[in-house]
Amino acid sequence: MTNDRICIWGLAGISEIKEGDDLSGHIASALRNSGGLASLQERRQGVVLVVAQKVVSKAEGRLVRLDDVVPSTGAKVWANQYRKDARIIEVILREARRVVRMERGVLITETSEGFICANGGVDASNAPVGCVVLLPDDADRSARNLRRDLEAALGISPAVIISDTFGRPWRQGLTNVALGVAGLSPFVDYRGQIDSYGRPLRATLLAVADELAAAGELVMGKTLGIPVAVIEGFKYQDAEGSGRALIRPEEEDLFR
Amino acid sequence: MTNDRICIWGLAGISEIKEGDDLSGHIASALRNSGGLASLQERRQGVVLVVAQKVVSKAEGRLVRLDDVVPSTGAKVWANQYRKDARIIEVILREARRVVRMERGVLITETSEGFICANGGVDASNAPVGCVVLLPDDADRSARNLRRDLEAALGISPAVIISDTFGRPWRQGLTNVALGVAGLSPFVDYRGQIDSYGRPLRATLLAVADELAAAGELVMGKTLGIPVAVIEGFKYQDAEGSGRALIRPEEEDLFR
Repeated sequence: MTNDRICIWGLAGISEIKEGDDLSGHIASALRNSGGLASLQERRQGVVLVVAQKVVSKAEGRLVRLDDVVPSTGAKVWANQYRKDARIIEVILREARRVVRMERGVLITETSEGFICANGGVDASNAPVGCVVLLPDDADRSARNLRRDLEAALGISPAVIISDTFGRPWRQGLTNVALGVAGLSPFVDYRGQIDSYGRPLRATLLAVADELAAAGELVMGKTLGIPVAVIEGFKYQDAEGSGRALIRPEEEDLFR
Repeated sequence: MTNDRICIWGLAGISEIKEGDDLSGHIASALRNSGGLASLQERRQGVVLVVAQKVVSKAEGRLVRLDDVVPSTGAKVWANQYRKDARIIEVILREARRVVRMERGVLITETSEGFICANGGVDASNAPVGCVVLLPDDADRSARNLRRDLEAALGISPAVIISDTFGRPWRQGLTNVALGVAGLSPFVDYRGQIDSYGRPLRATLLAVADELAAAGELVMGKTLGIPVAVIEGFKYQDAEGSGRALIRPEEEDLFR
């Protein structure tokens, strides 16, 4: 499958999302008002929505009021040492399946879903005052639900990627990655295919869902209030999809 | 800076690149034949070319003939254990500044430039028969040279990213990343900016050069003979640029 031209645009006009809001309804309205819906409806395939985790989590009520959190002694000691809010450290530790690193003021955990990221994805920025936002409970379920509801509302059936910006070892800076995926295979598998000299390609499994999430981030920004990117023209492989499949199994990972 | 619409297309028609070829000339011809050059010339800014490392390395003669390689005993033992070509293992070890992991058949090294990747980026796929291709000596210099030569040839001054697909800890599958960068800042720095609730954003430094490389990969494919992606409409921050800046300094990296 070749991709002639991929276009990416940010979906403006989604107002602040609160707990219990119908996120798919907000996205559907914004798509109707964008002037771009007809082009999406014409395409039978090749539409991907990248949706920032933050709005998904808020709609799902994945918020913790810090006033309700009593930090443990350990959280208090560590927070004090690195001038952090002990209640936020407590929330991160409670959300963690495992602490991966906790040194030099950096706290990296493995979340209950298995994602490894700084502060377990717990974040106070763009959160209601006095609250932190957690990652979705089950980002694949969130993606599937959004996809189903958008199909019902608009008659289009985009692939949906729930994304967040994560740091990574070895390389500086954050990139957007896919946490939840619905409607597309997160991988393109070139293994067994032939290179231009007629020899089999080395093991090459591309994490296209992460590349799509990264591409979407280019129009989202952090301060622009654009929580959704629309990607048109990427010919993906239809599949149920899974963001969890992008987590490297522990036994294959030489770095934990 | 907002990005209204980013479009990405693959540049077809670049024939097989050999040692000593004028890569910028090949790219310039392909751009002239693409029908897309006028649109690039109209834009004063916002054009990024993502160029696969493989064609850069070939043009620069970064090839090793395996018949000329005498493997060490250590390379032979390890290659034999995991059914690899001992000569390729020898090349990888010679190119390495440091071996990061060498277990279970996986060889991860830090290259002389400082990139940490499987097999030190040494690759036999899409290489001339009997040869392996190394990473460029200095990918930033390669990017700067390409940019300068394209400017001379076409009167456009695109940002240039030399890219390769790398694996990463924790997550499954490869993604395209930036090795060399010229003409754009590899980062967008949101630190100190204000969120939608009026509070400062947490430390947020986005590795946009890696996100652009990932976006470019979506049209490149591994078997399609498309070594260059053209990205239009991304409003980047002008800068000399550096891919090396994307390497996390060892003292800040908790994972090596």
